Amino acid sequence: MQQFLNAVERKLSPPTRQNKDFINIMPLQTGGILTDAAREVLMEFGDGYSVCDFCEGVLNQIRNPPIKDLVHEFLPRFLGCDLVRLTTGAREGKFIILHALTRRGDTIVVDSNRHYTTALAAARIGLNVVEVSNSGYPEYKINVEDYIPLIERHTPKLILLTYPDGNYGNLADAKRLGEIAGHYNVAYLLNGAYAVGRMPINLSEIGADFVIASAHKSMASAGPSGVLGMKKKWEDIVLRKSKMYQKKETELLGCTLRGLGSVTLMASFPSVVERVQGWREQIEKVQWFSQELEKLGMKQLGEKPHKHDLVSFESPLFYEISKTRRERGYFLYKELRKKGIWGIKPGQSRKFKISTFAGTRKELDVVVDAFKDIIANYA
Amino acid sequence: MQQFLNAVERKLSPPTRQNKDFINIMPLQTGGILTDAAREVLMEFGDGYSVCDFCEGVLNQIRNPPIKDLVHEFLPRFLGCDLVRLTTGAREGKFIILHALTRRGDTIVVDSNRHYTTALAAARIGLNVVEVSNSGYPEYKINVEDYIPLIERHTPKLILLTYPDGNYGNLADAKRLGEIAGHYNVAYLLNGAYAVGRMPINLSEIGADFVIASAHKSMASAGPSGVLGMKKKWEDIVLRKSKMYQKKETELLGCTLRGLGSVTLMASFPSVVERVQGWREQIEKVQWFSQELEKLGMKQLGEKPHKHDLVSFESPLFYEISKTRRERGYFLYKELRKKGIWGIKPGQSRKFKISTFAGTRKELDVVVDAFKDIIANYA
Repeated sequence: MQQFLNAVERKLSPPTRQNKDFINIMPLQTGGILTDAAREVLMEFGDGYSVCDFCEGVLNQIRNPPIKDLVHEFLPRFLGCDLVRLTTGAREGKFIILHALTRRGDTIVVDSNRHYTTALAAARIGLNVVEVSNSGYPEYKINVEDYIPLIERHTPKLILLTYPDGNYGNLADAKRLGEIAGHYNVAYLLNGAYAVGRMPINLSEIGADFVIASAHKSMASAGPSGVLGMKKKWEDIVLRKSKMYQKKETELLGCTLRGLGSVTLMASFPSVVERVQGWREQIEKVQWFSQELEKLGMKQLGEKPHKHDLVSFESPLFYEISKTRRERGYFLYKELRKKGIWGIKPGQSRKFKISTFAGTRKELDVVVDAFKDIIANYA
Repeated sequence: MQQFLNAVERKLSPPTRQNKDFINIMPLQTGGILTDAAREVLMEFGDGYSVCDFCEGVLNQIRNPPIKDLVHEFLPRFLGCDLVRLTTGAREGKFIILHALTRRGDTIVVDSNRHYTTALAAARIGLNVVEVSNSGYPEYKINVEDYIPLIERHTPKLILLTYPDGNYGNLADAKRLGEIAGHYNVAYLLNGAYAVGRMPINLSEIGADFVIASAHKSMASAGPSGVLGMKKKWEDIVLRKSKMYQKKETELLGCTLRGLGSVTLMASFPSVVERVQGWREQIEKVQWFSQELEKLGMKQLGEKPHKHDLVSFESPLFYEISKTRRERGYFLYKELRKKGIWGIKPGQSRKFKISTFAGTRKELDVVVDAFKDIIANYA
């Protein structure tokens, strides 16, 4: 036992992060950086089950901390929907909805730019997944009109749109798909993991039935955490109560986000509401950044002009350099790291994706200059 | 919008806890209080998706922080099992196992002291739940031999034992049930939400197929977080890989505990391993505490002598007092709160449950004295 304990202590010494103060351009991380207010509550509510101090049986009814206000008043207004629940993440929210609405063997129609967890959630249940193709290289756009023949052919239980997708940051015409869903009377789920908390999203304007959000990805929260919004018409299906425990929602297994995700989401929420108002500047920033990189010989993929901070580039120049370097494709990641820039996936050089959401213009200037330097030094 | 923002800011100002430095006897919380090492990592890894800095596609394979060592080396040794995965909590672990092993209409046999989420997880899938009765008042014991006729009659897909249960802290003969499960070749799931991280638990000694643990309840971790341990024979079913994404486990939707739960669990783990060795003193402590309360006229429920820190009492004296008080049953909660003691459920006076796990003898002395005082002042 002592030997085991020694090994544990040696290998599991409290981990630290070296890249905390880097300029962060990692798409997964730029929207999840905590606000100061959220950092404050970490110490306050770090202890397990401390958010449940004053629980009377249902997480979303807790008044202290004011989870009830957050879930029943502020998040529905923020999302333009009737009902909200917290979840442990976007994928878990997606599974909750799919599991409630479908049975093994049912079909759903999704965009081919969907996140991998859409395929996993569907496979977990045993669904047939029919995909709407994108337009291919270089824009990879989804034309929502293409849902129509697939809806007609497969009579799906649900359609899903990834808005934006996590590879190209493309924003398909979600509102038009709402009209289509309405016309065919099919449930419509919007995966807003990269949207909610970054840009304005209004479920009733879009005409979707459900939206899922990722709080650790886009709402300045600790992970794992998420939000699920819906129209009231689905309440009896998705939020059906246990027959035995009348306060408990079966599909949610009672309570979901019983921890730091909830309170960091709450603490960050005022800032998140505010930052969403600045979305126009975010778009200007990514378009400017994209132009700068294209001047250096890279080619932006996905929709142009771009409308989301998540953006992909082809960079044949870096690929050529990588062939001459001992580290091969890893050289780009390493060079940027040396310059205090965090977020290019190790190994990517021919093509990479980044996010301009967290960086100021000045910081992104540093990123542009870093690319220039690398080209000047190695090309 | 400004009005909305004002309301949000007014109502959602960063929440604080008033009871942080109280003597904590709340069963939900005593095993989840963070260690100092875990508190340190909160600030390090608070940002959303920061544990994924060096991810190559699978959470449990991350080397920095060393989640891979924790999941593949240390936790299996700690639990005496072959395979481990992190989960977002015990209930989610339970659902993962049930969902992987059963289909709608299947039957499972569980103890009647089971947690409410066992009923919810089963209902979510559409399972028939057959319960093994307990012995009733005052001990509410589960005799595991009683599983036998129910297994013979219902040929269940799985049997489950809550070890201990969350109402009485009873520890049924889990090992004997392992023999029974082996004899009938039925999958055996041990719900160790109140055991793993508090007391020694060895899956292979017990002969169970699965164990689920709650890290925020019993492993000094931030919530929500949990652990799932299993025998290798179930790997292809519970941890089956996606056909499309060969690294991703379908039933886990890819990755589970992508956040603070993982790193607090890691940081606390050396202390958790150590504290489990002191389980004998924990039992002595609860038995002493139980005797002290019985001297004051309360009656301990559940197994006697008691073998777990979670323990229930009948307190007719407090019930009599409550009838004379304006706050009725809430007086006990309020009186204890005034004395810096946290964890009696508001409203409970006739019967209450507490946990002696976090309190030192000296602190529990304060609790005993508080009960004495209340009786002296009001009875």
